[in-house]
Amino acid sequence: MIQVFGDIQSGNCYKIKLLLNHLAIPHQWHHVDILKNETKSSVFLEINPKGKIPVVVLEDGKTLSESNAILNYFADGTNYLPDDKFSRAKVLEWQFFEQYSHEPYIAVARFISKYLGLPENRIEEYKSKQEGGYKALRVMEKQLSVSPYLVGSQITIADFSLYAYTHVASEGGFNLSEFPAIQKWLQNIQNHPKHISMEQAGA
Amino acid sequence: MIQVFGDIQSGNCYKIKLLLNHLAIPHQWHHVDILKNETKSSVFLEINPKGKIPVVVLEDGKTLSESNAILNYFADGTNYLPDDKFSRAKVLEWQFFEQYSHEPYIAVARFISKYLGLPENRIEEYKSKQEGGYKALRVMEKQLSVSPYLVGSQITIADFSLYAYTHVASEGGFNLSEFPAIQKWLQNIQNHPKHISMEQAGA
Repeated sequence: MIQVFGDIQSGNCYKIKLLLNHLAIPHQWHHVDILKNETKSSVFLEINPKGKIPVVVLEDGKTLSESNAILNYFADGTNYLPDDKFSRAKVLEWQFFEQYSHEPYIAVARFISKYLGLPENRIEEYKSKQEGGYKALRVMEKQLSVSPYLVGSQITIADFSLYAYTHVASEGGFNLSEFPAIQKWLQNIQNHPKHISMEQAGA
Repeated sequence: MIQVFGDIQSGNCYKIKLLLNHLAIPHQWHHVDILKNETKSSVFLEINPKGKIPVVVLEDGKTLSESNAILNYFADGTNYLPDDKFSRAKVLEWQFFEQYSHEPYIAVARFISKYLGLPENRIEEYKSKQEGGYKALRVMEKQLSVSPYLVGSQITIADFSLYAYTHVASEGGFNLSEFPAIQKWLQNIQNHPKHISMEQAGA
């Protein structure tokens, strides 16, 4: 069976769970606690020498890391990843945007606040993340004002990639009230019959 | 004809040129000067509302941004992107690694040094980039010690993605002398008959 190593509270890990649930792919989930340095243990480093979660071990023993690469692997050949190469590139455009222009602001601000409890020595860094995070949200709002999902009218893994940290952006200090299109999109994703919330997934 | 907007000295832009040259795809290159804020001009923002280079305008007028998404688009169906979904995911794994764990250190250190001339008020940031940059180089060295290219024995767009800033890492203060496998890999890429250097591309 497919083995997934991750922390469901981490958006990068949760997005894998979300897709596997949509696709009804059986898997075992192994909780890894980064605050206890479990990603630096010798056992874990044998699985992923990069010392990062999420990482997936496939049934043939091969491993894959990088959350969005994992999503592409499982979505390939399904409705969650279009067939034509332009739409596929658009999905990737959003996923690279997520890792470069969204996650380093919104996920990091949330990590400092939620995981570390906003310690004094990281408040400046926390504040410095707000501008970039709002910039990313404005880019999303613009797209979601003209299409219900990030790449057209159907849900794709681009939506899962961005949903993962956007739906908990408030935990990083971001106020979504000025982003009506994002709010509607979050609702649409949550209303999908195959949706699983972070809370349900962690239970 | 395909239109590419970028700065050939930027690794993210140069990697597009490198692939287009390998594939002999005709295109027009439009130089965009970020230091002159040309990415913030109203003309440019109409092409790419995200205000970033590189961006490609295809023959049907559609646009694509995010360097690695662009590489996937053009490489799809060629030898530079494998067919099987596991190898494709491995290519993406390296490309996401590049954007999250390599570029923000090596490219940013190089930008501060080469583009901005290492101003006093950014020296601390420049120094803070060294550790992460060397960590990324060690991950690459480990892989390139066991395979000639990042994803097996054939050159793929994963190599172009990582080559772009690694081959000019010294401009960001990185010393590659302790990375023999990376050095050999750089040489292999440069020896390819369809290679074009940053200097040739900019001439």
